Amino acid sequence: MQRVALRKPDGRSLFLYSNAPISHGPAPSPFAAPLEGRPELRWHPLRGEWVTYAAYRQGRTFLPPPEYNPLAPTSDDASPTEVPVGDWQIAVFDNRFPALALPEGKCEVVVFTQDPAASLGALPLERIELLFEVWAERTRELGSRDGIRYVLPFENRGAEVGVTLHHPHGQIYAYPVVPPVPARMLATAAQGDGLLSQVIAKEIAEDRRILYRGEHAIAFVPFCARYPYEVWVATTAPCRDFPSLAPAQRADLARALKTVLLKYDGLWERPFPYLMAWYQAPTDGEAHPEAHLHAQFSPPYRTRDRLKYLAGTELAAGFFAMDALPEDKARELQQVKVSLA
Amino acid sequence: MQRVALRKPDGRSLFLYSNAPISHGPAPSPFAAPLEGRPELRWHPLRGEWVTYAAYRQGRTFLPPPEYNPLAPTSDDASPTEVPVGDWQIAVFDNRFPALALPEGKCEVVVFTQDPAASLGALPLERIELLFEVWAERTRELGSRDGIRYVLPFENRGAEVGVTLHHPHGQIYAYPVVPPVPARMLATAAQGDGLLSQVIAKEIAEDRRILYRGEHAIAFVPFCARYPYEVWVATTAPCRDFPSLAPAQRADLARALKTVLLKYDGLWERPFPYLMAWYQAPTDGEAHPEAHLHAQFSPPYRTRDRLKYLAGTELAAGFFAMDALPEDKARELQQVKVSLA
Repeated sequence: MQRVALRKPDGRSLFLYSNAPISHGPAPSPFAAPLEGRPELRWHPLRGEWVTYAAYRQGRTFLPPPEYNPLAPTSDDASPTEVPVGDWQIAVFDNRFPALALPEGKCEVVVFTQDPAASLGALPLERIELLFEVWAERTRELGSRDGIRYVLPFENRGAEVGVTLHHPHGQIYAYPVVPPVPARMLATAAQGDGLLSQVIAKEIAEDRRILYRGEHAIAFVPFCARYPYEVWVATTAPCRDFPSLAPAQRADLARALKTVLLKYDGLWERPFPYLMAWYQAPTDGEAHPEAHLHAQFSPPYRTRDRLKYLAGTELAAGFFAMDALPEDKARELQQVKVSLA
Repeated sequence: MQRVALRKPDGRSLFLYSNAPISHGPAPSPFAAPLEGRPELRWHPLRGEWVTYAAYRQGRTFLPPPEYNPLAPTSDDASPTEVPVGDWQIAVFDNRFPALALPEGKCEVVVFTQDPAASLGALPLERIELLFEVWAERTRELGSRDGIRYVLPFENRGAEVGVTLHHPHGQIYAYPVVPPVPARMLATAAQGDGLLSQVIAKEIAEDRRILYRGEHAIAFVPFCARYPYEVWVATTAPCRDFPSLAPAQRADLARALKTVLLKYDGLWERPFPYLMAWYQAPTDGEAHPEAHLHAQFSPPYRTRDRLKYLAGTELAAGFFAMDALPEDKARELQQVKVSLA
């Protein structure tokens, strides 16, 4: 993996990545001056968790017209965008409107491709593997900072989940604490009865909800899905984080992920919205043998034309209610034929 | 409070309530036979929580035409609805499509009024007090059953939060466990540093985010709001649950609630969607001195025309990011003048 580190005119970082040597234009920015203001963290005493406030985010870019795409390379005759011309394959830069800022966190944008009409699932396997290497490099770099305890790569896809830019991209949030959801999963796993490897063994034994099974990676609708089309993608053997992935694991995990993404888009023959989050070990200096790298997909649809709303029981109680059995949703996805070639 | 207990033709319970003696027609049901099938609970080992599956909910009523309103009294010339003619003021019946069923739970529908065009905030204070008495009666009755550990009254309001029927109504979920969100709040409070009474004392001392302050009740945008227009409504002194409310507390809590609801609807001069959930002590037989009856409102809008989407950091990490300071949102609501008369 090749990497180039640049600085934008407003002071933000920009990193370019490729499997081949990189040539590039100057680092652009739509903004000339550094952002004024910074996020404020407040403690929620009833829930025992942090909330972050960033009032300047009210002015962030919202579905700009197609002639101005801030995630496309800056062309000669247009306003500066967030990324330069060049032969890079993946770009990462500091979010101009971060919900978290150093030293209490960091928010980065990850541009998956220069093609605004592509999608993560449509990219070649080598690009998905490169993305895993980029996430590994960002996890190492962000996780090595004093105040950072957890690095979460994720993608919000589709207007249904509030996406404001349609160019294929994801985000990385670096947190000053292990956030509540992974903290809960790690605590449960550390007790020995919430280990993902046990779940995977059970899914393999039952063999009813599996979408992909390779030598090193697996994808399935979990027995305990909380969303109708929820899917988990994981290494079969426990692997603590992206930096720890062996090359063969990385290659198979890319095949598992691409399979899921193609099945999603094939299901209704249209782009399938989702939230994809990758859970890994905290970067708090502890060993975390209970950590097991995996993605959880939370799609917003419960049928082709009905959204699943999170309401009373889900948001207020945290007790999820599902209209469909995971087996039935798995069967729908199993029937979508895909080709990784 | 007057109460009449009836049985629907399909076996479901129906209760009618009023401040005056009740006369009524026979208990109707849109369905002749009992529901086939029942919910299935599964354990989510990674999160350490339950998920409930009820496949028959896919067939539930979805925004029916106005000429058929299942929550309006059954008229002579129409199909049977869920509630009878009569002079009742509030009705409660078993949800035909429950996410939880006895002995592992129960889902009830609470009809706030016979008027399909009214709203909870537009009802007189006496009706809101009666609703608190109904919630108290349901909490006592449901909570006295062996398998029930928690009773949660809530209202989902507005199509934006997925509401399928617009007639003013709420729901009651009775759970076989203390669900994750109240369990977390109770555990934090029991440690002594997440007590709502401490939060209230701080809000009164700062006096920047208060929307209503009476002798026994208070409403405010909390310092640690996770939603832009989040509001909490509580008794000023700790009160464990609805059955424990003294008459003067109940009357003032009704004034606090009606104030918030009128401010919400006055803010943009249109019905304001929200999720309103009332947290009380578990019904598990323990004392729970840490419990403090209160409502939390989670509205979906962040501005007049923009929804707040829960995406990567909120759903996947449980780390909420806000675009606005609670003080600013409180000021907007403070400026809406309302009259309780």
